[in-house]
Amino acid sequence: MGQAIKVGLMGLGTVGNAFAKALSQFQSDSHSGGGKAIEIKKILVRHPDRHLDYHSRLTTDAKDILDDPEISVVVELMGGMEPARSLMLAALKRGKAVVTANKEVVSHAGLEIFQASHTGRVGIYFEASVGAGIPVIQGIRRGLAGNRIYSITGVVNGTTNYILSRMTQDGLEFSSALREAQREGLAEADPTDDIAGYDARRKIAILATMAFSTWVSPEDVQVDGIAGITQDDIAYGLSQGWVLKLIATARRLQDGMEISVRPTFLPQNHPVAHVTGAYNAIWIEAEPVGNVMYYGLGAGGYPTASAILSDVLQATKDLIKHHYESWPIERHVKLSGPDKTRGMSYWRLEVLDRPGTLADVATALAQHGLSLRSVYQKPLSGDRALLFLVHHECAEHLWRMARASVAQLPVVEHMGIPVSIWESGQEFREW
Amino acid sequence: MGQAIKVGLMGLGTVGNAFAKALSQFQSDSHSGGGKAIEIKKILVRHPDRHLDYHSRLTTDAKDILDDPEISVVVELMGGMEPARSLMLAALKRGKAVVTANKEVVSHAGLEIFQASHTGRVGIYFEASVGAGIPVIQGIRRGLAGNRIYSITGVVNGTTNYILSRMTQDGLEFSSALREAQREGLAEADPTDDIAGYDARRKIAILATMAFSTWVSPEDVQVDGIAGITQDDIAYGLSQGWVLKLIATARRLQDGMEISVRPTFLPQNHPVAHVTGAYNAIWIEAEPVGNVMYYGLGAGGYPTASAILSDVLQATKDLIKHHYESWPIERHVKLSGPDKTRGMSYWRLEVLDRPGTLADVATALAQHGLSLRSVYQKPLSGDRALLFLVHHECAEHLWRMARASVAQLPVVEHMGIPVSIWESGQEFREW
Repeated sequence: MGQAIKVGLMGLGTVGNAFAKALSQFQSDSHSGGGKAIEIKKILVRHPDRHLDYHSRLTTDAKDILDDPEISVVVELMGGMEPARSLMLAALKRGKAVVTANKEVVSHAGLEIFQASHTGRVGIYFEASVGAGIPVIQGIRRGLAGNRIYSITGVVNGTTNYILSRMTQDGLEFSSALREAQREGLAEADPTDDIAGYDARRKIAILATMAFSTWVSPEDVQVDGIAGITQDDIAYGLSQGWVLKLIATARRLQDGMEISVRPTFLPQNHPVAHVTGAYNAIWIEAEPVGNVMYYGLGAGGYPTASAILSDVLQATKDLIKHHYESWPIERHVKLSGPDKTRGMSYWRLEVLDRPGTLADVATALAQHGLSLRSVYQKPLSGDRALLFLVHHECAEHLWRMARASVAQLPVVEHMGIPVSIWESGQEFREW
Repeated sequence: MGQAIKVGLMGLGTVGNAFAKALSQFQSDSHSGGGKAIEIKKILVRHPDRHLDYHSRLTTDAKDILDDPEISVVVELMGGMEPARSLMLAALKRGKAVVTANKEVVSHAGLEIFQASHTGRVGIYFEASVGAGIPVIQGIRRGLAGNRIYSITGVVNGTTNYILSRMTQDGLEFSSALREAQREGLAEADPTDDIAGYDARRKIAILATMAFSTWVSPEDVQVDGIAGITQDDIAYGLSQGWVLKLIATARRLQDGMEISVRPTFLPQNHPVAHVTGAYNAIWIEAEPVGNVMYYGLGAGGYPTASAILSDVLQATKDLIKHHYESWPIERHVKLSGPDKTRGMSYWRLEVLDRPGTLADVATALAQHGLSLRSVYQKPLSGDRALLFLVHHECAEHLWRMARASVAQLPVVEHMGIPVSIWESGQEFREW
């Protein structure tokens, strides 16, 4: 392979440390071959005194990496938007390949990153930005090359999946499951980014960009989070044979794409319904392949380091061949119109339990053209009751308007958050 | 991309037809880009009168493809060992890239095929040989590059999985489930190759060759098929929370690899236990990634065509860059010794129901050092009974000897086939 490829590592937190160890382990493995020709030359850190193991290679100045002509691969593991974005752009402009786990930068600033990769004629690698070590990005680009992808349905946020799994399997309430996730290190002290679905939104934007070969930004993704889900919702779903998951999905409709992150009831026999705890899974419907699913740990230092390592190995191969993969930077995704997006949803209402209540609710629905698929009433203490209702498929803007009307009814004290009912984006058709 | 890449297609059965249609669909898709530069120039068939759609391109003489200097990619979809093997070797020696779905040739003749690829300095692509469209071969080679793989656990034969799923979900007996699979076109008139585990053996040999970067031949794989499994076995497993699958597995032990195809009880909560019908799944334990699983349809014209198409696209890219991937051709796998392979197994015995029977069986086991983990007796009509027993983990050659002794006992009328009890090959350890 000629002389060693020199790597500049930016960031030495959990993932950076795991990557350095994984590379070293790989190099000491007798089967490794090419990995021996890779060397981490410099490491950018904020506090060199905390990383004495790597003493001689540490720097606090990014220029030591960016201006080093020997360094041809920059591994960015700092996370967050800045300074990561600027450093990645600077590296690409200098013709250094960039490997990153940074979903914020790839999703929000992907267009300029891809453009800089194109201008620098050098690769940007971001397998680790979705699903940690699950090789889903290359799985789509290389493994399903030539397929027409109809839909992606993913559990891509481990924190919310852990919370929902504990609620489903062990009957915990949301707040207890969240506290437990925090104790286990699976949720941040401020868990908003995960709970509100923002993390999943970035990941489905990246996956949709890959799958549809057209730029999708996080702002193109409709998001509902899981705050407000209660044990009543979970238990009702189970009584119907449904499992509640935070589902990130992107699918082709006739007039464009629908891309969303939503609490969703999946049928218990759907393979994605079995994805529990901190695991992630990405289910793809495509022609000619039919259905495929990728499954694995969606977070953690070592799983993420696996994707970083495989990308670094690919980057070194590509550098030797003067090759880089170009990513979609020109067209912007065409989204489906709000009246074209259709679906069923489930609502939980806390109502006054008196004659006429159900008539009021049903009338409000009918005024927007919604028809009920099922309704179930559970008595509460006092003069109140819970109504669990599912409406038949209709345009999404209609049921959103109907919800607003129902929320105004005097008999309705409280409404839970809506939960989508899963349906296959597109039946598999043989041509 | 310069001028079109010309493809020679050998075989126009179900997969060949699906591939030709999938390529054409891909080329007419406005998003396709590079696919337009691929052209199927000639098609080798036995009966040109059956394929009038492709009239002008048909030939019955392989030389028309092999000797055509314009054809740079040969897609071999004839199946079976000969003449496919000879034609693939001839194509590679002439410097033509070969894409194939042929698991017989890749598993049994892989060494000479890989050698010919090396000699011809041109690629051999065989993603379709395992798991149809599931991109598991590239998923291992590219997606898990740098990982140390500890074990692969797969459901890789759709026919047996369909039969076992029907027995498990619908209570069918083996013979009824087999007849149904034959009616559905999922089993051959002579189903031996699937039922006896020979098909799964070829696939795990290919997967293990990829995962361990060392040549594994089908003869290195221990095989037990599923003929002889009864509804009693299935029902007993379910009562223990176990699901019966035909599991192909390859794992690292301290002294070498253990590679086998065996009926196996998986815990109901194992992701592979949920893989039903004609689906396939491959579960991998590796460092640093942890666990990953690939899942999808394991057979069929279109799913297989997906892998062929992605390989053809990769082959055209590689040809342009004068690149080919080299496969392991030198070292041969070191297998674990029979005394090092350990495990638990389940046996079903039909015995005479009289005092001393259990003592006789237990004594025979004890003579080989086996200790019982559980035993359950179910009365049959007459003076007979079924014994369901599970022994504690021990060396495999010990329990095989113990079975031979038990089979000799006068009280034992019949023994079912042994079923392995699944255990993780290697716990995931963070370094």
